[in-house]
Amino acid sequence: MPAPAHTLCFRVRYSEVDPMGSYYNSRALEWFEHGRGELVRSLGMSYREMEQRGVLLPVVEAHVEFVGRAAYDDLLKMTSTLSMGGRARFRFDVAIESAATGQSVCHGWTVHAVISPAGKPIRPPAWLVKLADSRDEG
Amino acid sequence: MPAPAHTLCFRVRYSEVDPMGSYYNSRALEWFEHGRGELVRSLGMSYREMEQRGVLLPVVEAHVEFVGRAAYDDLLKMTSTLSMGGRARFRFDVAIESAATGQSVCHGWTVHAVISPAGKPIRPPAWLVKLADSRDEG
Amino acid sequence: MPAPAHTLCFRVRYSEVDPMGSYYNSRALEWFEHGRGELVRSLGMSYREMEQRGVLLPVVEAHVEFVGRAAYDDLLKMTSTLSMGGRARFRFDVAIESAATGQSVCHGWTVHAVISPAGKPIRPPAWLVKLADSRDEG
Amino acid sequence: MPAPAHTLCFRVRYSEVDPMGSYYNSRALEWFEHGRGELVRSLGMSYREMEQRGVLLPVVEAHVEFVGRAAYDDLLKMTSTLSMGGRARFRFDVAIESAATGQSVCHGWTVHAVISPAGKPIRPPAWLVKLADSRDEG
Repeated sequence: MPAPAHTLCFRVRYSEVDPMGSYYNSRALEWFEHGRGELVRSLGMSYREMEQRGVLLPVVEAHVEFVGRAAYDDLLKMTSTLSMGGRARFRFDVAIESAATGQSVCHGWTVHAVISPAGKPIRPPAWLVKLADSRDEG
Repeated sequence: MPAPAHTLCFRVRYSEVDPMGSYYNSRALEWFEHGRGELVRSLGMSYREMEQRGVLLPVVEAHVEFVGRAAYDDLLKMTSTLSMGGRARFRFDVAIESAATGQSVCHGWTVHAVISPAGKPIRPPAWLVKLADSRDEG
Repeated sequence: MPAPAHTLCFRVRYSEVDPMGSYYNSRALEWFEHGRGELVRSLGMSYREMEQRGVLLPVVEAHVEFVGRAAYDDLLKMTSTLSMGGRARFRFDVAIESAATGQSVCHGWTVHAVISPAGKPIRPPAWLVKLADSRDEG
Repeated sequence: MPAPAHTLCFRVRYSEVDPMGSYYNSRALEWFEHGRGELVRSLGMSYREMEQRGVLLPVVEAHVEFVGRAAYDDLLKMTSTLSMGGRARFRFDVAIESAATGQSVCHGWTVHAVISPAGKPIRPPAWLVKLADSRDEG
């Protein structure tokens, strides 16, 4: 029974590449956000709707391993997986590879707190826990 | 009687340089914002304080001419000038040059509307008009 | 006989939105680059291939009019058009609107020089001029 | 005998803050780069000069713990420390706090490989090892 996961493809933008000819390291964290946004959408919710329901998920920890290069216009394939990362923590694991060769570009994870718009930690609502728990029950 | 102006120096960051070895074009607009923020501060106000007083100055128009290159770690000198750009518009003109050679890197301007936190256009308060009008009266 | 044009849709990322709740102004220039890259691809070329052929097209002028807001996750529709902007200049005009309502978000243009990898201005090769001139000849 | 360290102050830019009113997470990695660049400079070298000597230090691993908020225009104090992170690895540890209150904003580290401009791993030259080893010998 696998965790909720989602895969998407995107191209490296010119603005994301540095003088070494590969993507600048911090871009990985922006890509991770893109991936988890689409994963949440694929579960029938959107992160925007979450915010409107009064649930914010700020990143409290991030880790990235930079394994391979990715040049301008390279097509990348990103797979994001959602899991509980503690009682009131969510965790997204992300792996990015070259769509052409399958070689790893980078992988890592982010851990997210659950807070109110006022910035207070809150207990994750049932619908949110259920989301992280949704999976094919074939 | 010159318009309010301010000059500062900064270095080009690695993350701001693209594969051609010069700063990526959109970075100029981020630098412009840095320049106008410090100009406003030099006038005894801060943009944050403006926002707290209920006055937002979103950019409604931006123009940049890219004249020269600037590589990673180059020291740049940026001069920003403030003027009224209409009855309810403010305009910042910005020029960026190499601190070492004085050669122009880019120059341009932004035009700003005056709005409330709710997004409605407002008449610029007296203190704001006065700010744009402040200058040495020797 | 219309100029070469291309339309694509994309969502505003969280990292692109500022405290006012709308996209930060410099992001428009990154979006413009995305648009012209896909326009060039739609003409059977890629900007990367151009670079490999020794032709670089740095931005020498950029202009943006910020007309409307776009919040996180809003779906935007961007149309880019290519034209000659002088004997050795290319120009891309870009218009971005809300995919849902059709309301304008921003529009503007960039002008591009034609240079060699060594940074010298060069005469645009025939294949490049032809590209800017390609259109349906029904 | 402490490791080479360097402290600098900077303000959070408007473009770096997201709709939650605090800096966007990936910005921390850009700040880290700023910090290590200035640390290297304080040791009498510059990262640019390193590159000119044929030594590149791409990030191979990054980790950030996001502890506190930082709003637009907040003055932050960043301390970077350099150490060997293995035989051919360098490691920078970074801590960022509010300059006003001393409260932690975030901290983390990056690990760097040592490669040639052609992308091949190389043995760190003696001057580089010495740099990481430099300290006051009172």
